[in-house]
Amino acid sequence: MNPPTTPPTAADVADAAHRLHGMAHRTPVLRSSTADALLGAQLFFKCENLQRTGSFKFRGAFNTLAQLGDEQRQRGVLAFSAGNHAQAIALSARLLDMPAVIVMPEDAPATKMAATREYGAQVVTYNRYTENREAISRRIAEERGLTLVPPFDHPHVIAGQGTAARELFEDVPDLDWLFVCVGGGGLLAGSLLAAQELAPRCRVVGVEPASGNDGQQSLRAGRIVRIDTPHTIADGAQTQALGELTFPIIRDHAEDIVAVSDEELMQALRFFAERMKIVVEPTGALAYAGAVAHAGADEGKKLLHGERVGILISGGNVDLPRYARFLSALPD
Amino acid sequence: MNPPTTPPTAADVADAAHRLHGMAHRTPVLRSSTADALLGAQLFFKCENLQRTGSFKFRGAFNTLAQLGDEQRQRGVLAFSAGNHAQAIALSARLLDMPAVIVMPEDAPATKMAATREYGAQVVTYNRYTENREAISRRIAEERGLTLVPPFDHPHVIAGQGTAARELFEDVPDLDWLFVCVGGGGLLAGSLLAAQELAPRCRVVGVEPASGNDGQQSLRAGRIVRIDTPHTIADGAQTQALGELTFPIIRDHAEDIVAVSDEELMQALRFFAERMKIVVEPTGALAYAGAVAHAGADEGKKLLHGERVGILISGGNVDLPRYARFLSALPD
Repeated sequence: MNPPTTPPTAADVADAAHRLHGMAHRTPVLRSSTADALLGAQLFFKCENLQRTGSFKFRGAFNTLAQLGDEQRQRGVLAFSAGNHAQAIALSARLLDMPAVIVMPEDAPATKMAATREYGAQVVTYNRYTENREAISRRIAEERGLTLVPPFDHPHVIAGQGTAARELFEDVPDLDWLFVCVGGGGLLAGSLLAAQELAPRCRVVGVEPASGNDGQQSLRAGRIVRIDTPHTIADGAQTQALGELTFPIIRDHAEDIVAVSDEELMQALRFFAERMKIVVEPTGALAYAGAVAHAGADEGKKLLHGERVGILISGGNVDLPRYARFLSALPD
Repeated sequence: MNPPTTPPTAADVADAAHRLHGMAHRTPVLRSSTADALLGAQLFFKCENLQRTGSFKFRGAFNTLAQLGDEQRQRGVLAFSAGNHAQAIALSARLLDMPAVIVMPEDAPATKMAATREYGAQVVTYNRYTENREAISRRIAEERGLTLVPPFDHPHVIAGQGTAARELFEDVPDLDWLFVCVGGGGLLAGSLLAAQELAPRCRVVGVEPASGNDGQQSLRAGRIVRIDTPHTIADGAQTQALGELTFPIIRDHAEDIVAVSDEELMQALRFFAERMKIVVEPTGALAYAGAVAHAGADEGKKLLHGERVGILISGGNVDLPRYARFLSALPD
């Protein structure tokens, strides 16, 4: 794609919001008196698990595809992903009437492949032990003249993701804090841009799995730190590093990045099912788990006490058998 | 209580809506392109599983308690229920600053007792094999001068329940159909009243578990038919008969009452988790399962094709281990 490398701005997020109007769901903001009582705060849960395709990824995908030129549209797009980005690209392409090819490992869950095909995309599989997905993707893209859409490090993707936080800031003025999960940093960077325009006082905190805290390390080191693929139930945050575009925005504007254990994630996931009646995938539970950890982090000082706190729930795509195991508190 | 026996009207539902403003959540209306495609219709899901206490029951409980006189408020209220009515009364009483006693069988799930106590109610237990809950309740109510609040057959309860459909009719004009679960008929009767004012053309259909189709039988017979407590996973619809107040409203205004199997309920429950990312209890899945059955009921004629269809999801209170078994397609 030769993705544009100009950093996105708050104005780009506002433009993306116009572009997504009527296409993305304006997802609801839910409350929980149980969570409020637990943290001594007012919590506002922005439910991107209720977004089309089950995650916020639809926003960035649609915003990117909608800005392609006529020739690019005719030829179509390509993405490599076994996760939420795949379905987001597939549905966006169908809505914009362009062909889409998704490159997935041949051992990806059958349900995810089926869902991606249902949205009308062509699925190309590869052996992840013997083949290189980037090389395969590049070859197919070149052969067919497809535009490759990266999962997070692209200004239009980042701007699109920022529209979720933007809606939250519109619906709930005067937020003191916002907690956002971090994988490649697209959602966090977009949220930070949205905050610049609508909630400049709001402190935005990223949340990572403890075993995959490359973002936290990067923030401390002042440069992008790359790690091995982390072992965590939060499969959407198994990225190895922040992006060239997402990192500077996060470095300059994030309040902090905190990390939580898989056990804390499972507790949050069960809280969502039992008390809030919503299905949240492990990655989607990061933000709330981070807020809970953060609230008690300063030894009794109750950091969030009396504050207005936004929680960005990123997605709800989890295979039912796996989800049932989490609810039964069985290991993955 | 010597409950008032004047039948409630559409105006009572409108009054209840004012009373509940700012107290009940205005629950979101969700869409699903998967469900739309399956039924060839436009579906609108009103999510009372996201209501306070996890079910629509809060509406009727609060509407009733808010209309008690000063002396009744001071003495407090009593309800017998092991289900959603218990939590609804407990929270409503706390919000209105009145004492509440909930009579529950001593073998009720510990989590339900805990939740009811968390809301500030006193829980009194009885042995359901050796004691009569109605006699116990009447004795305690008389001793302490408590007002007994019935779960459905009370005009203020019915009017309160009607506010859920009322909000749906406001948010989604021109609905052709509305599907609503039936236990004692409070939610269905209230919905029918709301439709009279805001959607007189809308056909409102009740949905029961097949093994507990007393409502369907009553509609056919033109009088209240009483059955043995039915065996079904839809524990909120295990009532034996419609009420003296709910039946005439249903008889005069409901389009029909249809019945679905437990297997159809489980499929609907899994659809909600997998595609819509919401936790729905078996009773809460009745309306959608009924719409799916109804859509295919006339042998290819596709009854709901091209129509605008409301689905009232009544609640999401289900113990996590039990819910996990449903998701894994294991028997209850």
